[in-house]
Amino acid sequence: MPLAIGVDIGGTKVAGGVVDDTGAVIDRTQRLTPSTDVAATEATIAAVVAELGERHQVTAVGIGAAGWIANDRATVLFAPHLAWRDEPLRDALQQATGIPVLVENDANAAAWAEYRFGAARDASVAVMVTLGTGIGGGLVMGGVLYRGAFGVGCEYGHMTVVPDGRRCACGNRGCWETYASGTALAHDARELAAVAPVAAHRLLELAEGDLDALTGPLVTRAAREGDPAAIEIYTAMGRWLGRGLASLAAALDPAVFVIGGGVSQAGDLLIGPAKQAYAETLTGRGFRPLADIRLAELGPDAGLVGAADLARRRN
Amino acid sequence: MPLAIGVDIGGTKVAGGVVDDTGAVIDRTQRLTPSTDVAATEATIAAVVAELGERHQVTAVGIGAAGWIANDRATVLFAPHLAWRDEPLRDALQQATGIPVLVENDANAAAWAEYRFGAARDASVAVMVTLGTGIGGGLVMGGVLYRGAFGVGCEYGHMTVVPDGRRCACGNRGCWETYASGTALAHDARELAAVAPVAAHRLLELAEGDLDALTGPLVTRAAREGDPAAIEIYTAMGRWLGRGLASLAAALDPAVFVIGGGVSQAGDLLIGPAKQAYAETLTGRGFRPLADIRLAELGPDAGLVGAADLARRRN
Repeated sequence: MPLAIGVDIGGTKVAGGVVDDTGAVIDRTQRLTPSTDVAATEATIAAVVAELGERHQVTAVGIGAAGWIANDRATVLFAPHLAWRDEPLRDALQQATGIPVLVENDANAAAWAEYRFGAARDASVAVMVTLGTGIGGGLVMGGVLYRGAFGVGCEYGHMTVVPDGRRCACGNRGCWETYASGTALAHDARELAAVAPVAAHRLLELAEGDLDALTGPLVTRAAREGDPAAIEIYTAMGRWLGRGLASLAAALDPAVFVIGGGVSQAGDLLIGPAKQAYAETLTGRGFRPLADIRLAELGPDAGLVGAADLARRRN
Repeated sequence: MPLAIGVDIGGTKVAGGVVDDTGAVIDRTQRLTPSTDVAATEATIAAVVAELGERHQVTAVGIGAAGWIANDRATVLFAPHLAWRDEPLRDALQQATGIPVLVENDANAAAWAEYRFGAARDASVAVMVTLGTGIGGGLVMGGVLYRGAFGVGCEYGHMTVVPDGRRCACGNRGCWETYASGTALAHDARELAAVAPVAAHRLLELAEGDLDALTGPLVTRAAREGDPAAIEIYTAMGRWLGRGLASLAAALDPAVFVIGGGVSQAGDLLIGPAKQAYAETLTGRGFRPLADIRLAELGPDAGLVGAADLARRRN
């Protein structure tokens, strides 16, 4: 299969890579995201593509973006961190680059990459859960990426897990991602530090005493060092992860769950409690085969690799 | 298309019908379910098929059963109300009847029937929610019935909606069906009657003063008469229905929700509050197209019709 360019558009940077037919990224470049300006963001993406396209013969460009992509894989309906609203991104980029473009939700693209080249290779039904600031989701079944009727499926993070629970960035309360994500880690750590600073002394030390600086990555670092408070926060979050996976298994009955995103780098600190809560709350346990729960293999490249591969296969 | 027999195996009766290519049931028969005895249940199904097969030329038999059917559509893994455990039902019935047999979960079969002949005809993605004693679920996407990796998908009723909530027949707590089903209606009505008998006077009258006789159908009857307590119970349940649909829409993004099962006969008493709660809790509302929420059209025949049609198309 020919080479393709994948572009991952984050809130802070636009990362591009040239992806070969084994899913390897053989060249890459990146620029800062001018996130408030539609035209400037599109020009930045086009520049990333142009730079890589000069160095390699590519047949397609796949864009992975946090947001809702219509089922035409051309139009961004809504992007939480960018200025796009009903933006015809595909056509603008095709015009600017002269290469066929496909636009995909970043979590969908990551799920596709893990299915093609990573932890869910050849799974009959693979559900991917990406734990970052929030939860991204994807679903690949029978070799097809599921997108929903309107292109906005697999937003698992906004399934309600606690009625009238924590306020979510989506405006609702009790969404799964308010209990299982980097934001949830920070929420728990700040609460602990505010109420019980002695128990949270290592967390506070890492944050230099500033509650607002107590972020998910700091909790991960403290937990890996063995800090009991951070481990407890991870354990509680892992249990929420496992409970949510049990609800997803009731609905989707996957063969494999792939857990990715920055928070998943904590590995067993997260996956251990998740597997335990999953096994304890899965409906019909004992009468059904259990899905595997696996860590993602492709790391932060997953979105870029998946977008490139999807674009290439479209052609 | 040729005729096929559909058989719906309930906890109390085995209902069989001959289904034509428009989904119409042109002949039918039924017998009592000898539910505790595996051999007797299979003999009863075979007798129903034999009776209908004598009167019509059929090419296939579809069995719809409450329970988990393995992905071979041959083996019943587990049936809550029947004695089957890892039962090779398809082969036993093929041997007994001499006709090709397919076994399907009853809610999956009902979803297929609504997709082919009913409220979700030709929908790109249709999610069916069947409200009876519990919640049955089905999903048809791109003209394909979704079954999950192991054949046990779409058990939406066992998604957890309240952590540590009401005890469910599946052994867990807080499953959706403990808040939205005929069982939930009875639960609420009995609680009201026990705590506030004056408010529940009409419900108690219908149950002749016996709390245990206060069942879902009685609540439905009282609500249709205009009894304020029964209407309030329906409104509360409808809201739980709508909240659950919003979570399902986050994950599955269907074009159409079809609400069926005995409880759905309450019509607007149920669907009104469900639509309202759905619209109030759907993530990203305002930035996405809304799925239609429709009442099922095929009534109690849906399982039988869907099983017959699936079996016929397999051949």
